[in-house]
Amino acid sequence: PKVVKKKVLDILRLAKEIAQDDPRKVIHSLKVGLSISMVSLFYYYQPLYDSFGLSAMWAVMTVVLVFEYTVGATLARGLNRTVATLGAGALGIGAHHIASLSGATAEPILIGAFVFVIAAIASFIRFFPKVMARYDYGMMIFILTFSLISVSGFRDEQVLKMAHQRLSAISIGGLACVVISIFVRPVWAGDEFHHSTANKLEILGDFLEAFVFEYFKISKEGKFEDNKGYSKDKSVLEGYKKVLNSKSSDEALVNFARWEPGHGKFKFRHPWNLYFRIGTFSRQCACRMEALHAHLSSDIQDGHIESLGKQTPLNGMLAAESSNHLLDTLFTQAARQLEYFKGNSA
Amino acid sequence: PKVVKKKVLDILRLAKEIAQDDPRKVIHSLKVGLSISMVSLFYYYQPLYDSFGLSAMWAVMTVVLVFEYTVGATLARGLNRTVATLGAGALGIGAHHIASLSGATAEPILIGAFVFVIAAIASFIRFFPKVMARYDYGMMIFILTFSLISVSGFRDEQVLKMAHQRLSAISIGGLACVVISIFVRPVWAGDEFHHSTANKLEILGDFLEAFVFEYFKISKEGKFEDNKGYSKDKSVLEGYKKVLNSKSSDEALVNFARWEPGHGKFKFRHPWNLYFRIGTFSRQCACRMEALHAHLSSDIQDGHIESLGKQTPLNGMLAAESSNHLLDTLFTQAARQLEYFKGNSA
Repeated sequence: PKVVKKKVLDILRLAKEIAQDDPRKVIHSLKVGLSISMVSLFYYYQPLYDSFGLSAMWAVMTVVLVFEYTVGATLARGLNRTVATLGAGALGIGAHHIASLSGATAEPILIGAFVFVIAAIASFIRFFPKVMARYDYGMMIFILTFSLISVSGFRDEQVLKMAHQRLSAISIGGLACVVISIFVRPVWAGDEFHHSTANKLEILGDFLEAFVFEYFKISKEGKFEDNKGYSKDKSVLEGYKKVLNSKSSDEALVNFARWEPGHGKFKFRHPWNLYFRIGTFSRQCACRMEALHAHLSSDIQDGHIESLGKQTPLNGMLAAESSNHLLDTLFTQAARQLEYFKGNSA
Repeated sequence: PKVVKKKVLDILRLAKEIAQDDPRKVIHSLKVGLSISMVSLFYYYQPLYDSFGLSAMWAVMTVVLVFEYTVGATLARGLNRTVATLGAGALGIGAHHIASLSGATAEPILIGAFVFVIAAIASFIRFFPKVMARYDYGMMIFILTFSLISVSGFRDEQVLKMAHQRLSAISIGGLACVVISIFVRPVWAGDEFHHSTANKLEILGDFLEAFVFEYFKISKEGKFEDNKGYSKDKSVLEGYKKVLNSKSSDEALVNFARWEPGHGKFKFRHPWNLYFRIGTFSRQCACRMEALHAHLSSDIQDGHIESLGKQTPLNGMLAAESSNHLLDTLFTQAARQLEYFKGNSA
């Protein structure tokens, strides 16, 4: 019981941290709860239930599957789902129609063959790199809807009515998500992308600054004693690691930001690709910093310069000089890159 | 029409490339088609349809949503889905029972409140880093099932029977996926991870080798003329870029490999974490190589060493020396790291 209590307290503390760190996550959770409660009106409100019946389920399902944290992600999922449902629905009804012309014995075989072929082709298309990046969810829904419509058409004579109901339910569910995510305290992927990009540049700049202080404190000890603050704050010198591994989150954000309508200072066709390029440069820059950082800690650990200096004076000078030059080169490269894309992003 | 024809040909060529590059992707597509056709037997075969009815839909849905490329990913999704459905189903039936005790007017309000609270809490839990990495899909299915069961319980008096049917259909669908993905030409995430890790070390080693030849060819021209092969094959020198951005795919693979039963030379609890650590080191190593590579191209472009050499002989010597030392340091760091984790992985 003590262990359980500790675990529960740990989880609660974590939850509190996440909530304090970004209150929008709490708001997002409430928005999801609200949307699901809203679409469950399909069940409670008699006139709505009369016209939708069991298809009301699809509205609830759509909300759960489509509602994402950012507006762009919700839009991307919603559009993917709507388009895929439309296309697959039409194709499914067509397949059902063709199969039903062929008599009672051949019908299930024919439908089975259709489902096999379409599902296999669609699964293969999901491996295309572009499709995988942007339309993966849509392809999945396409396979799902096509299979369900054509297969359950075998049992349900009113296949057209069913498809129509389902599509309306999905559209309403999708629309509810989009409206709520845009109008109730929206979280824009574009804003996130903009801030994360700016933050990356900030981190890189901070690193260079902290690095200069840290380095000179070590090699010429005593001279820069008043800059103690930096050396304690190691996190500034490790910040570049966050930048290094930012590619996948950048890729997601650029894909989502693309779907978003104009908001705030961003127009609809804001050149998000350029943000992505800045990201690529900043990752290169962070790579240099990793090298610089490793150099810093190897200097400390091995007493590199000192030990080399003991061999011969010339060697020592060369080593110190070349060590400086190494830093110089790396530093200049990093600083120049930072300069370059700061200029580009302005 | 010409443009369309060209597009279609392009797509076909891309498809052919993907298929030739990895025939397992074609087999995977066929497996998906097969599984979906198999579970549609729920609709065609009368005795099965009698006992499942419309719930048969859930078997088809499960196959489409759970079947993934690797065994580990399929297992992860299948287990997530089954556990989440069980938990949410029990909770949903409980909520329905409590609500139904409270009379006809209060029932929808109470259920609405339950759905709102549970959906909001579960959505928030999805933000926990560990949950997001491994159980995100399970949490989504939890919200989905809980909402559907408790809300549609309002209309369907046989809520227990419905939940039971649905759960069986999902289990059968999930089981079909798992069996087919394990026994028909399996693609193991563990194998993929092993090979991608080995391949990374290969790429890094090739880079170092190619770099040595390329560098000496430039700085002492004429001396190493017979090593032309390397300089033309720039792709070897750019291979480290693939390694640099491998973190997210490594993360996915380590999560999937963990679920897999023993296969081939790997036992159930193979230490995949160590593979991930090798991955981290190889990314650090690739970072050094990025710096080395940039140095190489800046030497070529600026004629760095030569221009410095013109100022004074000493400067030139220092520059050349420090340049060498720069390379030396980076090279040694990279080589030592490679050595280190080659030793570790053996």
